[in-house]
Amino acid sequence: MIVVLSSGVSLRDKASIVRFIEQNGGRLLVSELGEVTHIGLVDEAARALAPQIETMPGVAMIRSETPPYPQVSREHRMGDTIVDVGRVSIGGTEVVVIAGPCSVESADQIATIARGVAGAGARMLRGGAFKPRTSPYSFQGLGAEGLALLAAAGSETGLPVVTEIVAPEDTELVTAQADMLQIGARNMSNFRLLSEMGAQPRPVLLKRGIASTIEELLLAAEYVVSAGNSRVVLCERGIRTFETATRNTFDVSAVPVLKRETHLPVIVDPSHAAGDRSLVSSLAAAGVAAGADGVLVEVHNDPEAALSDGPQSLTIPGFAEMMTKLRAVAVAVGRTLGETVG
Amino acid sequence: MIVVLSSGVSLRDKASIVRFIEQNGGRLLVSELGEVTHIGLVDEAARALAPQIETMPGVAMIRSETPPYPQVSREHRMGDTIVDVGRVSIGGTEVVVIAGPCSVESADQIATIARGVAGAGARMLRGGAFKPRTSPYSFQGLGAEGLALLAAAGSETGLPVVTEIVAPEDTELVTAQADMLQIGARNMSNFRLLSEMGAQPRPVLLKRGIASTIEELLLAAEYVVSAGNSRVVLCERGIRTFETATRNTFDVSAVPVLKRETHLPVIVDPSHAAGDRSLVSSLAAAGVAAGADGVLVEVHNDPEAALSDGPQSLTIPGFAEMMTKLRAVAVAVGRTLGETVG
Amino acid sequence: MIVVLSSGVSLRDKASIVRFIEQNGGRLLVSELGEVTHIGLVDEAARALAPQIETMPGVAMIRSETPPYPQVSREHRMGDTIVDVGRVSIGGTEVVVIAGPCSVESADQIATIARGVAGAGARMLRGGAFKPRTSPYSFQGLGAEGLALLAAAGSETGLPVVTEIVAPEDTELVTAQADMLQIGARNMSNFRLLSEMGAQPRPVLLKRGIASTIEELLLAAEYVVSAGNSRVVLCERGIRTFETATRNTFDVSAVPVLKRETHLPVIVDPSHAAGDRSLVSSLAAAGVAAGADGVLVEVHNDPEAALSDGPQSLTIPGFAEMMTKLRAVAVAVGRTLGETVG
Amino acid sequence: MIVVLSSGVSLRDKASIVRFIEQNGGRLLVSELGEVTHIGLVDEAARALAPQIETMPGVAMIRSETPPYPQVSREHRMGDTIVDVGRVSIGGTEVVVIAGPCSVESADQIATIARGVAGAGARMLRGGAFKPRTSPYSFQGLGAEGLALLAAAGSETGLPVVTEIVAPEDTELVTAQADMLQIGARNMSNFRLLSEMGAQPRPVLLKRGIASTIEELLLAAEYVVSAGNSRVVLCERGIRTFETATRNTFDVSAVPVLKRETHLPVIVDPSHAAGDRSLVSSLAAAGVAAGADGVLVEVHNDPEAALSDGPQSLTIPGFAEMMTKLRAVAVAVGRTLGETVG
Repeated sequence: MIVVLSSGVSLRDKASIVRFIEQNGGRLLVSELGEVTHIGLVDEAARALAPQIETMPGVAMIRSETPPYPQVSREHRMGDTIVDVGRVSIGGTEVVVIAGPCSVESADQIATIARGVAGAGARMLRGGAFKPRTSPYSFQGLGAEGLALLAAAGSETGLPVVTEIVAPEDTELVTAQADMLQIGARNMSNFRLLSEMGAQPRPVLLKRGIASTIEELLLAAEYVVSAGNSRVVLCERGIRTFETATRNTFDVSAVPVLKRETHLPVIVDPSHAAGDRSLVSSLAAAGVAAGADGVLVEVHNDPEAALSDGPQSLTIPGFAEMMTKLRAVAVAVGRTLGETVG
Repeated sequence: MIVVLSSGVSLRDKASIVRFIEQNGGRLLVSELGEVTHIGLVDEAARALAPQIETMPGVAMIRSETPPYPQVSREHRMGDTIVDVGRVSIGGTEVVVIAGPCSVESADQIATIARGVAGAGARMLRGGAFKPRTSPYSFQGLGAEGLALLAAAGSETGLPVVTEIVAPEDTELVTAQADMLQIGARNMSNFRLLSEMGAQPRPVLLKRGIASTIEELLLAAEYVVSAGNSRVVLCERGIRTFETATRNTFDVSAVPVLKRETHLPVIVDPSHAAGDRSLVSSLAAAGVAAGADGVLVEVHNDPEAALSDGPQSLTIPGFAEMMTKLRAVAVAVGRTLGETVG
Repeated sequence: MIVVLSSGVSLRDKASIVRFIEQNGGRLLVSELGEVTHIGLVDEAARALAPQIETMPGVAMIRSETPPYPQVSREHRMGDTIVDVGRVSIGGTEVVVIAGPCSVESADQIATIARGVAGAGARMLRGGAFKPRTSPYSFQGLGAEGLALLAAAGSETGLPVVTEIVAPEDTELVTAQADMLQIGARNMSNFRLLSEMGAQPRPVLLKRGIASTIEELLLAAEYVVSAGNSRVVLCERGIRTFETATRNTFDVSAVPVLKRETHLPVIVDPSHAAGDRSLVSSLAAAGVAAGADGVLVEVHNDPEAALSDGPQSLTIPGFAEMMTKLRAVAVAVGRTLGETVG
Repeated sequence: MIVVLSSGVSLRDKASIVRFIEQNGGRLLVSELGEVTHIGLVDEAARALAPQIETMPGVAMIRSETPPYPQVSREHRMGDTIVDVGRVSIGGTEVVVIAGPCSVESADQIATIARGVAGAGARMLRGGAFKPRTSPYSFQGLGAEGLALLAAAGSETGLPVVTEIVAPEDTELVTAQADMLQIGARNMSNFRLLSEMGAQPRPVLLKRGIASTIEELLLAAEYVVSAGNSRVVLCERGIRTFETATRNTFDVSAVPVLKRETHLPVIVDPSHAAGDRSLVSSLAAAGVAAGADGVLVEVHNDPEAALSDGPQSLTIPGFAEMMTKLRAVAVAVGRTLGETVG
């Protein structure tokens, strides 16, 4: 339920309504954009007061049908949320590019890649230390050692780092080393892990599950936000369909649908969607044209030798080439995109 | 099988190879791009000659694995095919926008829309006269009368027209009135109709079926081309997946995959993919950024009153607004897009 | 809209209601099962009379929400429809097995298979003469010659025959030779062909499209029935999903859903669903256990040499083995299944 | 790699081969069925010995291509694995029915349901205490209290109990109360949890993810088995597709495909597949006819008042009715199914 206030409502009337709800034990959310003010009635106690609120001065109407994800919904917060990761802001005018290898493999590898992508305009560094792999016999990541290598490479280049967390018991370890925590597609419905993310201090990059609807992604974000952490960035990375020409089907429509439904930033991961480096640049451009706030791509200094996801990793020169294209597209839709350094 | 000639092969050697195949009853395709020449061995008779061809002067190698759609494959024709529809060229530098209503409803309606979209930079006019509808009780189109109204509106505005054909027996009627014939998604596997399209003189706009793979789309195009008509334009218009936030899932990856696999032009239809006009502009921009040669959109002068597909139709001002965005994105990726008239 | 009559309504009251609707130009459908009588108001003229009908004696209530497929809906015909094909009845107590090759290839081949399946309890013979193939270079069937061979084999064994029709212009030819006409999955949304099926005298076997919902299958049936032919049998044959272990995903739930929604008989085709003969017997048994009225399977005397669909064709001994299992399952769910001959 | 021994190989030769591999540090698996013996070479050390093994007496051949899930593959264990849960055996002749509510709600509720399903022939009791719910605002289960109530109801009726575990940190708590641990569909790719299941003493019921392929399900089982617990039962419970007439699409083909690929028992969950109690009995019968070793169904004493999954829960009389049908189908395919008590 959302209480829509009259435009031009007085501060005093607004305060009275808020006080009335709070004094009666209700939980609420206030959202203001220009002349419009919404007060969301979040819990049952608040909603029970609706008949009385309806008659208070300054109330234009009460809307009773609300989305099942109140806190991430744009109805409860009309303006865009900007998530800061170190000195990088996701959700503002700049389209933020996050790049790096699928897995951290060695100090040399991650440092080389970090320098390469920083030089071409990446704003953040990605790299996996704990890898969820379909087969128990595949490379599972370097673990704690990988985290340290990633942090060192980020520190050297000045890029904040993001890495995946796969279980609640790793929280302390990962938050100590990473600037942002990624929940991977396979864990989007791991509700225990989502709740844990609400109780730690880092911003969260939440990837859509391969068979998750957009509504389910928003509900997963609601788990994190309702547990106390409102700094969540959503990521479209391809869904599973009948088509086998690509690893997954990049659902670019998710970008405008999410931007309409939620105030949270939305980025795209064309690497996992495509599964093939020759398509990554085109899909990244499509995502930016569709309104994405950022792009997450896999880059490797030697893709043929990569321990995971080699076929979909860009080379460093390939990444630089993609950046030139993305910059032009970003400008065409009224955004900016990280300039090259140097 | 493809015979790859040595770079710098002499004209004389080239001619000898071609003559040898033809004199032995084989069917072939020659494709040249810069220094590279491929000779495709299309039928069994030609392929049987491979051992002898392999030893002829000027032959670098013979590649035996070839795609199941030889004539539309880029291996058999390395350069891009440009399909001309009247004075409009699809597949060149310009991104061609085709706009109009789902169904032709009246002389006034189609004329109003035609003028509106022409003024905003559309290069072709679309409109349905024979509508394949899921329910037998839905509006099925104006038929022959609708064709005439569409042709008149196209003639008045100077826009070539494209309309759907649903059965072989309508061919004479439709080719008499339309500049291009559309095979709709539901008929992409109607092989009798595809073959018929190969035997008539108009270029063909072939839409991907909602559950068709990219390979099946290419095989459908091969039906038309192998039956004698090489002027085929492919169209991605959304596939059926589990996601219900959009009418279909716009598979934007199909654009770069198709551009890699085939020499035929590729356009996108964001209206049917989205099913919701608020998403059309973003998806159209995504398609252009991904490399599409054109965009097909539904536009109506009064969407609320439309007899079909109202919710996904742009208004005329909405179309003009989209065109401004598309033009900027087209330029960002090295293309142009129709200027406004007047 | 459906007029539900009071139980114990008099014949006289019933007749008055029907007469009132007809005299006012309305179209109706009467359905009776035990004590319950429904009168469906099919067209606008009939529905306009609802306010007056509501007050007539014998009317219990008028239900206004009705399915979009009124004529095939169980609300308009509560009892099961039985479709007779020659002396075979589909939709009654017996589970009807229809067997034969994907394609008719020669007189010997079809006769051998016909005798084999007849001996093992098949009640009808299937065989393709016009084959819709994904590639223009695949075997397209023997055409008219194949039809004649199929009819001869059916005649010799006493089995009615069913074969696919792919275009309206073949209707005369196919109806002259076949006892039942099949609309294949690829043509389920070929509405021109569906309408044509309503105007010819043979019963129709309508297969579900690989990406068609159950509702769309029912609407396709409504096309045939509303065009004048109520003898339609529906067939579940697998849908397209992300799973690649089978050719298609056999949607066995479609059987009980369809039996609840429609009065038409429902059969299953496990061969096309599985794409692998080792699975056919299990899926056929699943279909019968779920309530199917029949089973359509591909059988070949020499699957390795088959011109199409060899991998999914049962051998004749494999078919006989399957029949033993199906017979036991049919009896377990209160049905019978064709006894072996001789 | 699999070493296939000659039929009639001597015990002495067999022992020599095994000893040779072990002495050289290789890991192996021996599987015998009738006259056939396979020795699987599980790790790199063992595979490196292949050239020498090939020449040893008693070796018929070495097959180099093996499935990516060696330990659960039927190639490594030709006979069926039977998983014992208390006095119940899953994977033998009897089709085991496991029934109970979605969530444990109260002592009364679970006791009533336990008595009801036991009386109708259920062999195990299910009930959720930790519920993974899509929305953070939905009922999340009674937790530890629910576990105790479930155990008490199982104890009273003599039915072993199975319940879901959602995070590694709950292992001690859940194994103390439950006879079998369920990994739900949402956690099928939670590899940390799978590994944890390999290190605890209870048998595991592993449900297929809604977008997981059959191969991925087998790889998930390989995680558990390779971590030390070979008592795994697989469960097909419906996959996500475009069809919306059912909650999920029940992929009954998974049953025969899994029975061919693996030696582990396979059961079906028609309740989550259908999402509608009117379909459950038909789908359960389909599963048994297709070869399932068991059926998992949701039953509630008062479905309308259930805190979760009410619409798909059978009533107790509905369950008894289903059992009568399943018993007949089980017998038809050469199995038995739990008799009613008393």
